[in-house]
Order: sequence, then C-alpha cells, then structure tokens
Amino acid sequence: MRFTSEQRLDDGVLEREFTLGEIPGILWTPESASASASPSASAPAPLILLGHPPLGLRKMYPRLVARARQSAADGFATATIELPGSGDRPRWAAVEQARADLRRAMQAGEPVGDEIVDALILPLVDKAVPEWQAALDALLSLPEVCGPVGYSGGVISIGVRLAAVDPRIAAAVLFAGSFVPRAVFEEARQVTVPLHVLLQWDDEGNDRQAALDLFDAFGSEEKTLHANMGGHTGVPQFAGDAAAQFFTRHLNAAGSTR
Amino acid sequence: MRFTSEQRLDDGVLEREFTLGEIPGILWTPESASASASPSASAPAPLILLGHPPLGLRKMYPRLVARARQSAADGFATATIELPGSGDRPRWAAVEQARADLRRAMQAGEPVGDEIVDALILPLVDKAVPEWQAALDALLSLPEVCGPVGYSGGVISIGVRLAAVDPRIAAAVLFAGSFVPRAVFEEARQVTVPLHVLLQWDDEGNDRQAALDLFDAFGSEEKTLHANMGGHTGVPQFAGDAAAQFFTRHLNAAGSTR
Repeated sequence: MRFTSEQRLDDGVLEREFTLGEIPGILWTPESASASASPSASAPAPLILLGHPPLGLRKMYPRLVARARQSAADGFATATIELPGSGDRPRWAAVEQARADLRRAMQAGEPVGDEIVDALILPLVDKAVPEWQAALDALLSLPEVCGPVGYSGGVISIGVRLAAVDPRIAAAVLFAGSFVPRAVFEEARQVTVPLHVLLQWDDEGNDRQAALDLFDAFGSEEKTLHANMGGHTGVPQFAGDAAAQFFTRHLNAAGSTR
Repeated sequence: MRFTSEQRLDDGVLEREFTLGEIPGILWTPESASASASPSASAPAPLILLGHPPLGLRKMYPRLVARARQSAADGFATATIELPGSGDRPRWAAVEQARADLRRAMQAGEPVGDEIVDALILPLVDKAVPEWQAALDALLSLPEVCGPVGYSGGVISIGVRLAAVDPRIAAAVLFAGSFVPRAVFEEARQVTVPLHVLLQWDDEGNDRQAALDLFDAFGSEEKTLHANMGGHTGVPQFAGDAAAQFFTRHLNAAGSTR
C-alpha cells in the first residue's frame, strides 16, 4: 500500500489517496485519529469500508467524501477502493457485455434472467471481495486505523459475500438490490453479523419482493430493514442518519463528536 | 374532563388520572410543561396519544408509563384512555364473542376470515375513534398541552382511522398488525401524514404480507417501515429510540432534554 497524495479537508479530516498494487483507493481519517504533534493524544479509529456502484471512484467521489465526513464526525475512519473494470482500471470485456445485455433486457421491458445476473455480478464479486480483503489487511496495519470494521453500501452482493467470509466485518449497512445471483443469495444465510438494510420502496431498478426475500434469508440474529419512499437515489437524510447510528451502536466509535 | 388523582413521578413527570364522562384516562406532562410557581416559565408541550391493545389500562400501565417517561424526556405530553369494553368499562358481548371466535380459529390453525376480523375490529374502531377525538378536544383545552399531536401504537386500525379523519394528528407511529378490516385498509389510502411503521418480522400473530400490503397502501408521502427480528413483544430498544426520534423530528418538541 502506497500513499500517493494527502490533503486536509476543512473539517480536519485527512484524505489520502493510495494504490494497492494496481488498485487505487482513498482513506479518510478523522482529525482525532491522525498522526499529530503529540502521538500519545491520537487514538486509532474503527474503520468503515465504503462500498459504491461500479461507476468509477472519480464519478462517485462527491457522495463518497460526504459519507466519509459524516463518518469522521462520528469517530470513524473510512476507506474505499476502485472496483475491477471501473474508473482508471482496465476495461473488462465480459462484464461490459453482461452490462449491455442487462440494459437491453431492461429497456425492452423483459425480465432479467438469472443468467444475465450471474454473468454480470458473479465475476465482479469473485474478483472484488479478495481485493477488499487485501485492502483491509493493509489498512488495519496502519496505527491510526483499527477494528471493529463495518461495511457500508455499494453492490449488495459484494457486501453479502464479504460479510459472509471475512470475520473482521463486525456490522454492515446494505442497500437493497435485486440483482443478486442465486449463489450469493445462498451465502446470505451464512451472514451472522448485525445488519441494517436500506430499501427504497419504489426503486425503479429493484424488485421489491426479491429485496424482501434476501432480507429474510440473512442468518443474522439482529437485522433491521428500513424501507423509505422514493426511487433508487432518493434515500432521505434521516435514513442516512439512522444508518450512522447503527454503526455507532455496533462499532463503538472512539472519540465520537456527536 | 375531570382529574381524579395526581402524582409526581421521580423524574418530575406529572401523572394525572382523569375521567371523560364514563371513560378513564391518564395524562402525563413533563416537568417543564406543568403548572409551576412561576406560570410564565412553563411552556405547553406537544401531545402524543398513547394507543394500546384492548387489555385494560391497569394491565398496560407499566408499558404505558415507560413510554410516557421517555416521551416526557423528549419534551412531550402523553395521554391515553381506556378502550371500549376493556378494563373497568362495561363488558361488550359482541366483541367478546368475536374475540372468542378469533381465538378458536387461531388455535385450530384455521385462516382468520374477513368476517371475524370485521366483527372484532370494526365496532371497536367505530366506537373508539370518536372517544379519542373527544379526549383530544379536552386535552388540547389544557394550557399545559398543545399541538401538533402524534398518535403512537396500539390497535393499528384505530390509528389508521384517527390519522385519516382527524386533521389534528400530525404524525403517527403505528405497530403493524394484520387484523385490519378491508374498510380500514381502504381508509389507509386517505392517510397523508408522516408515518413510522414498526413491523416485527416473525410476529406470531401477524401476517407479514398483510402488514407489507398495508404499508404500501398508506397515502403518505413520507412513510418509513422499520422491520426487526423477533416476535410481537420483542421490539428492540433501538427501534423504540428510532420511533422517538421520528416524533421529535415531526412534532418539534419544545424543551427537549435529549
């Protein structure tokens, strides 16, 4: 892991870009957790991994930095990495073909078959999850970052697989999506950490019943579904606040300022 | 409305029993809203009506007073009245017969037909809603109580009808229940105030799909469903906290201490 740039945001949050091999990423740490003149005064901050859709970090930056600032105010470090095939990473022909197939099916009003979902999502999950785990190895070796670790948002199948296979993930906020391969749906039963699932009731790109079925499948003893009105990008502010409170409850943020 | 007893609880909340004609009730006001030596220092508190199942106020008292104390800490007055046919009010043969029919059907594992639900719930709603409205008239005439008014919990059909017909109800927390007469289901479409609906995912006495259908039917632009694990009485503490935050957001509690 190599830091390539560093800037201090106006609220004291330290933003550092890094590369992990060929993978670009960003780490945000709250002022209280950053290296300071008096090292003894700084405490490591629990980490939240910020998931995102495969649109490229540059495009997602405004929303990511907003989530990072809110999390920092709650005492958390946050980090994200570029997804395979997105942003500045090499194109990925197979996934681009599947994306085109998906677009065509949706525009034609056809049902999106399991084979399209599998072709689109499974290679992404298979490749991304080990990358997020490698990022976690590197991030947790930094003195200003610590566990427990949360995972938040993005491609829900990546969150499900990561929560199912990596015991360092202690809690997850997932954004309901219906394009979940059957194999990942089965993995949901293996997830046992506390979950906070956001569902947009009228999400145009999301089958509501599929999202409810996935929620039902999770093995977690504590899981909460927050359904709100509006479309995919219309998550109300109070729902974001509730997700933040979920992390504060489960990750025991040190140095919270709220 | 006639006050029949008065006691100050250890957290400063003033608890007063009253009768409204033949109907017993209880009013709780936060210390800040109570008559004080210096009347100019006290401000009226927005009111939350505390709904409850038809088991009698005496039996429900421990849970009601806990909700009243939490609400008072948030700056709210709360009040409740006895439901028709419950507690010290005269028995009600028709409803008791319907209750026995319901119990028999559930114990036999038979589906609970619309006619049982109608016979059980409609008379209760028809009689209770005007009583709650009369209580609201009396309560809002007190100088220590003001609007906007919230309604919370209890028999969901009473909450739905009240929110649909009384414009003084500005926001409601409803506890999902599946025994909703078709007529009340249709009234749900007329409800437009912000709603916060609690659903216990594995509620033994509640059909999940019916609860989701009712949530879908509400006409409100802002409605949120919070689904949590566990049975009917297993609502987690954090879900109660979220409902309290909903009221604080919508009723603009004066003098909040949280």
